[in-house]
Order: sequence, then C-alpha cells, then structure tokens
Amino acid sequence: MAVIGAGDFIGGEIAKKFAAEGFTVFAGRRNGEKLAPLVRDIEAAGGEIHARSLDARKEDEIISFLNDADKHAPLEVCIFNIGANVNFPILETTERVFRKVWEMACFGGFLMGREAARVMVPRNRGSIFFTGATASLRGRAGYAAFSGAKHALRALAQSMAKELGPQGIHVAHLIIDGAIDTEFIREGFPERYALKEREGIVNPERIADTYWMLHQQSRDAWTHELELRPWIESW
Amino acid sequence: MAVIGAGDFIGGEIAKKFAAEGFTVFAGRRNGEKLAPLVRDIEAAGGEIHARSLDARKEDEIISFLNDADKHAPLEVCIFNIGANVNFPILETTERVFRKVWEMACFGGFLMGREAARVMVPRNRGSIFFTGATASLRGRAGYAAFSGAKHALRALAQSMAKELGPQGIHVAHLIIDGAIDTEFIREGFPERYALKEREGIVNPERIADTYWMLHQQSRDAWTHELELRPWIESW
Amino acid sequence: MAVIGAGDFIGGEIAKKFAAEGFTVFAGRRNGEKLAPLVRDIEAAGGEIHARSLDARKEDEIISFLNDADKHAPLEVCIFNIGANVNFPILETTERVFRKVWEMACFGGFLMGREAARVMVPRNRGSIFFTGATASLRGRAGYAAFSGAKHALRALAQSMAKELGPQGIHVAHLIIDGAIDTEFIREGFPERYALKEREGIVNPERIADTYWMLHQQSRDAWTHELELRPWIESW
Amino acid sequence: MAVIGAGDFIGGEIAKKFAAEGFTVFAGRRNGEKLAPLVRDIEAAGGEIHARSLDARKEDEIISFLNDADKHAPLEVCIFNIGANVNFPILETTERVFRKVWEMACFGGFLMGREAARVMVPRNRGSIFFTGATASLRGRAGYAAFSGAKHALRALAQSMAKELGPQGIHVAHLIIDGAIDTEFIREGFPERYALKEREGIVNPERIADTYWMLHQQSRDAWTHELELRPWIESW
Repeated sequence: MAVIGAGDFIGGEIAKKFAAEGFTVFAGRRNGEKLAPLVRDIEAAGGEIHARSLDARKEDEIISFLNDADKHAPLEVCIFNIGANVNFPILETTERVFRKVWEMACFGGFLMGREAARVMVPRNRGSIFFTGATASLRGRAGYAAFSGAKHALRALAQSMAKELGPQGIHVAHLIIDGAIDTEFIREGFPERYALKEREGIVNPERIADTYWMLHQQSRDAWTHELELRPWIESW
Repeated sequence: MAVIGAGDFIGGEIAKKFAAEGFTVFAGRRNGEKLAPLVRDIEAAGGEIHARSLDARKEDEIISFLNDADKHAPLEVCIFNIGANVNFPILETTERVFRKVWEMACFGGFLMGREAARVMVPRNRGSIFFTGATASLRGRAGYAAFSGAKHALRALAQSMAKELGPQGIHVAHLIIDGAIDTEFIREGFPERYALKEREGIVNPERIADTYWMLHQQSRDAWTHELELRPWIESW
Repeated sequence: MAVIGAGDFIGGEIAKKFAAEGFTVFAGRRNGEKLAPLVRDIEAAGGEIHARSLDARKEDEIISFLNDADKHAPLEVCIFNIGANVNFPILETTERVFRKVWEMACFGGFLMGREAARVMVPRNRGSIFFTGATASLRGRAGYAAFSGAKHALRALAQSMAKELGPQGIHVAHLIIDGAIDTEFIREGFPERYALKEREGIVNPERIADTYWMLHQQSRDAWTHELELRPWIESW
Repeated sequence: MAVIGAGDFIGGEIAKKFAAEGFTVFAGRRNGEKLAPLVRDIEAAGGEIHARSLDARKEDEIISFLNDADKHAPLEVCIFNIGANVNFPILETTERVFRKVWEMACFGGFLMGREAARVMVPRNRGSIFFTGATASLRGRAGYAAFSGAKHALRALAQSMAKELGPQGIHVAHLIIDGAIDTEFIREGFPERYALKEREGIVNPERIADTYWMLHQQSRDAWTHELELRPWIESW
C-alpha cells in the first residue's frame, strides 16, 4: 500500500495502521528524511515501511514511486493525504499561491489516482482514497484557493469512483472536519487543544481506522463519501 | 437497543447483529407476528429479543415501546428503518398516499428520534440512526411523496445531530443506494437479482455491520452521513 | 393567476405585481378578511383581485379555489407562499407542532401543486412556483419541524419540475434568505430593521419581481431554483 | 464592462446585450481576430466594443486588459465565460490536459475575478459573474479534468461572493445545462439541433438576458447561483 502525504499525524497513522495489518507500506512526503520517526515506529512494531522523498506534483516521481511500491507488494491501497490549508483575502491571493495550492492538493491527487488506477484496473481490485475537508463542500471568505483545490479533488474522486467502480476499484473521499490532534493545533491553538481531554479534537488513529474500515468493505456495499467530526463540533 | 421497522431484511439483520454483540433487542413492526422467524433465529443463536407489534405513527405506542425497551436494558441504540417507497405520477398521487408516506417514513422517525433523545440526553450517551435512500438527496419524476418524506427525514436527522451531538448523542443518517438482497428484488426483479453472484446487490448483513461500526465510533470522530452502494451501481 | 399564502408582505406583493401586469389574481389566506387592504390597493390601481379565505390543508378547498380561479381567467401561474417558521428544541417539539408545520408548509403545497398541474397539463403551459428558505437546504438545531417541511417542499418542487417540465409546465423553487421587510422584523427585530436604510433587508417587491421574471422565462432556458439574499448577509 | 471568453455564441451574445444597453464592451478571446464579426454586429447596431486577443491564463494580460477596459469606462461588470469541456477516461487523461483544462476554466477565472475585485472594491460596486455547468455540481465518469476545473471555479465564485458581497460586489455563478444553440451542436449533433424548433436547446440570447437581469438586481436581493436548462431536458 502507498500513502502520499505521510505527515506526522494523519498520514503517519494511516501508515502505522496498514503496517500493523500486515501491509508493506510505501510512504512519500516532500522531505523523506522527516519520515525517520515513522519508519522507526513501524519497524519497532515489526512492520515493513519504505520511506521516500516525493514531490507529488511531478508525474515521473509519482510513476516511479508507485511502480516501486507495486514491485515490493502488489498495490492494493493508495491514499492521498496532502493538504494545503491557506487563508488569504482574494486580493492578497497571489497567482503563485493559487497555483501551488491546486498543484499540491489536487493535481498531485490526480497523478496518484491515475497511476494507481493504471496498476489496479487490469487486476479489477484495489482501493484509492482521498482526504477531503469541509472546504471540499463549500466556499468561504478567504478560502478561494484552498476550497477551489479541495472541490476539484472531490470532483476527481467522484468522477473516478463512477468510472472505476464498475471495474472493481473502490474510490472514496473522506471529509475530515474539526481540529485534529496535531502539533499545529497543540502549539497554535492551546485552548482548542485542551478539548482533547473530552474528545473534542479528532484522534488521527480514528481516521486511520476509518480508512482501514473502508478498505475492508465488501464490494456489494461501498461507501464513496463520508465525513468525520468531533461530537462537540458545530457545523 | 431498539429497531423500528424490523423487516425481514435490513431491520432484521440489524437486530441479529446487535443481538450477536450482546445487546438486548427490542424489535417493532406493524404486524409483530411476522417477527416470529427473527425471534427464532436470534434465540437459537443465544440472543435476547423482544418482538412487538407497533404502529410507529402513534405517539403513545412509541413512548411505551421505548420505555419498555429501556427497562429491559438501558437504551443505547435506537434505529429507524421504515421505508415507504412508492411511485406515482403527481396527478395520481392521492392525498391519502402523500400523507401516509410521510407519516410512515418521516413522522414515525420524528417520534422515535424525540423519544429516544428523551431517554438518552440525561445520560449524555446513545446512538440514534436513520435509514435513508437516494431519494433523500434529490427529487425525481414520480417520487414527490417518497422523496418528500425522505428529504424530511434527512433534515430531521441533521437537525437532531447538530442539536444533540454536543449533548453526547450520536445521530446519523445512512443512504442506502441500489438493490438490496430482499424477497422484493428476488421475486420482482430476477435479472437484477442474478447480479447477486457477483456482489451486484447489497447484502443486508453489510448494512447491519455499518450500523454497528457507526455505534462503535469514538465520539472524537463521528460520521453523521454516509452512503452504501454496490460497486456496479451507476449513480 | 393564484397565490396561496397571500400574506401582508411577500404574497401580497406577488399579487400586486401580477395584477399590475394585467393578471386576474386569486388570493387565498387562512383569514380572507385580512386581504381587505390588498384588495383595496390592487383595485385602486385598476387591477382585478378575488380574495378568499382558504385552508390550504383541505383538498376540497384547494380544488374549488383553483377551479374558481381558472373560470375567471385560465390559470397560468400558481404560487405557494405559506411559511411556518418555528423553532423548538427537539424535546419540546410536540407531535401537534411537527404535524402542523408539515401540513402548512408542505402538504398544502402538494395539494396546490397537484391541482394546478391538473389544470395546466392538458394545456401544456403554466408556471407553478414555491417559496423556500435556507431551511430547505440544511437542517439546524431547533429546526427539525421547519426544515423537515421545507426540505419536503423542495423535493416536491424538484420531482414536479422533472416530471412536468417535458409537459410544458415550469416548476420553480425560490430560496429566500435573510430578513425580509415585514412587520414581524420591523417590530420584533428593530436593530435588524434599521439595516433597511442600506438595503440590508429584502424588499418584498424584489421577490415579486423575481417571480415575475421566472414566469417570463422562455421555455428554452428555465430556472428551477435560485436564491435571493441581501448583500450584507453572511451565509 | 468586460467579457472574457467572448466566443461566437454565449460570450458574444452577452457582449451584444450589454452593448445594446449602453455599455462600452471590452471583449477578449484567445484569437482576437475571430471577434471581427461581433465587432461588426455591435458597431452596426450603434454600440461600442473593443476586441482584444487575450490569454486569460496570463496574469499580466488580464491586468492590462481590465485596466484598459476601466480607462474606457469604469468597470461595472466583468464576466468569465471560458469553457474547456473535454471528456477522457481517467487513464487517458494526460498531465497536460488536466493542467490546461484547469488553467483555462478555473485559473483564468481566478485572475479575472481577483483583478476585477481590485478595481471594484474601492468603489463598493460592480458585478462579477462566472459561467458554470452541470459538471460544476457533480463528477462524472470521463470528466475528472472538466468537472474538477468547474467545481473549483464554483468554489472560487462562492468564496468571492461571501467575501465581497458585504463590500458591495455582486458575485454570481450560472449553471447552464443542456445543449446550447451553437455551431458545435448544429454541426456535431444534428438530431439534437432539430429540437431547436420546439425550444429544446438554449438560445444564447436567453443566457445573455439572464446575465443582464442579474446585473440589474438590487443589492437587497442578490442571486448568487441559478441554473438554466431547456424544458425538455432530463436532469
């Protein structure tokens, strides 16, 4: 299995979960050296992981990453987890930001999705999952770039699900809402983080479990979209 | 736990699943005598079930059904599974049909949801789940009555989820799409039913598993809506 | 043309607009005597209006109201404008309220829509419009009854639009968002009402103009749903 | 006023409509020479139009185009009408196609929207409109690139509407569904085109009228999204 955007939190937990279930994990992130703690954790637990530096916006890098993964163990699961949550008033949204957010949060997903499909379609099996957000569903002041990229990723997931479902490929899109238990929240929003004690922020393990559950679904009853949010979240 | 609309298929499987997991099941349907096979199955497997005749459109019947259930075992899960899928051109949709479909598919859900909440809110825990359909999401020629009732049930579920989530109650709405493995499909749509061999129709056990999974979710990551459909379904 | 729910504001303005455009208006509201000022205004302007007491939840009353209207002038436009905006926590939502809100805001719309269709379909022309709200689109804490009824009305409008469009009947649903310039806002929410000076609340004439515009649309380019909200409204 | 994507049909009709209403029109399209017939028509009718070659994906070209337009007549209306409707199975969607469709159908819209806002915000008035499609609302097999770009454009429009509405700028998104009376349909889909006789395909003049109507809306009742489709269209 491969996870692209194997950050310290969600992506890392997904990697751990699938490794614990016996999958050989290929994990890619911009700076592969940052994957060292994840590699250590997974190997200490007896799992197998291959960590790579990967610029998901580069077609050739995606192709060789996935081909490599498929050589180690036939590619059954491929997860795209790159975010790019930025917030700028429209007049301060530069061309560079608008383009980069789309390239990271959508274009990379397209490259991964297409190349995963290329491997999986001849076998008529496999799971391709994408991480979404509330911004996937509606625009919001200050979020033209981010919600544009997330809407586009959702349209990609839905188009692929409709095309590839009847070919045996399970494509799903997860909308994660609310604060997640990450360093970003812990250090930047301590009041928010204090809600952790009463399960007010999402534990990344729960997200990883959900990806696992989706991969376990029998093909007579596939979920193509679901959302996850903490109980106290208003929406 | 209580399931209202414990039909031969989905509702029955939900009852079996929760009984197998150790829950005392209260099952209600219009004609309680038809629950005999379900009672036999669950008891043969060592489970506990109480079967009742129940008109879900009657406030007093719902109240006494749920109070009774709560006395046998504190009510933790309450599931509304009554459908009313009818199809009439608008000019042939009688006042009686329009009203009855709403009473069965929405009003009964309101009564169950409110009374389940009355029991659960003081304890700040519990799951209230509703079965939806594609008609919950969009209208369609010939479905003014059914999609109206299903849209209303979804609005009820969403309103309750937003109000009761912060009080510890997990409210969710499941959209089941595509043919389900029921007698109705087996006898009425044999060509469709033949798809069963290749998992082209939904196995009710998968639906029951999904209700169970939702009840197991930790409150830091609740799903309030998801859909289930067979891999070959076009949508 | 007929307007049901010809209140002092939106419905009344719709009546005035169509009367000014030369239509014979049939206006119904629960207490027909309250239509006296509207009758006076329209007649003073040289228009023709027939005011009736009408309980829109009664099939026979709707039938005779519309037949009567059709005798005075072939029924080309029929508008449903009954609201029932109430707000109760779910535990305080009585059976009576839940049912009555649905009967007023949805069931009456069904009766009107179906009977208008009965008159219009043989002629393959006519407009049937429904007034919606933000609650038509999403549930909200405290709005299980109201948003349920509004969701159901929208599903009715959409189902009818899909079925009757190809028969030449234009069915549309208008989502009116934000405060409207009514006595209710003027007296109950004076701070909000003060926004009127800077066009911060909706002028009912603008809504009436929109209904008129929709009726004027050529059938090669029909709108089935649109929303209207003040510029300062957050959403 | 400025229209970007002033094609032979929709964009051209928009230009004619606003010219006929007295606006000085700035029209841009990739190959400005193709605007000659439009210039001839508008000038023959006594209108004023400035035609330019414009690559909407180039920030500097958009900036100078809009600044130029604003010098001729203060920019009150700015319309983005570039489409890029392509259809490829996911495995045949090249990196180049995926990127180009987004650049044309979304990125150009962002550049135009932002630069129009830069001119309009200090004046607290102006209209910025975007042309959408059914693909703006849902993905579809074969449309990962197109629906991705259209979803992103819609998210841009919605984010801008929410941010700029309270600053007096009217941002709207029009969903045009069904065949439009263009050379593309006339030559490529003659059976479909034959529906023209019974108004089965959209007359671009109706679309232009709708853009005009939106610009005329009073700010107490703005529409941010509407759809247009022919009466016989199934949806």
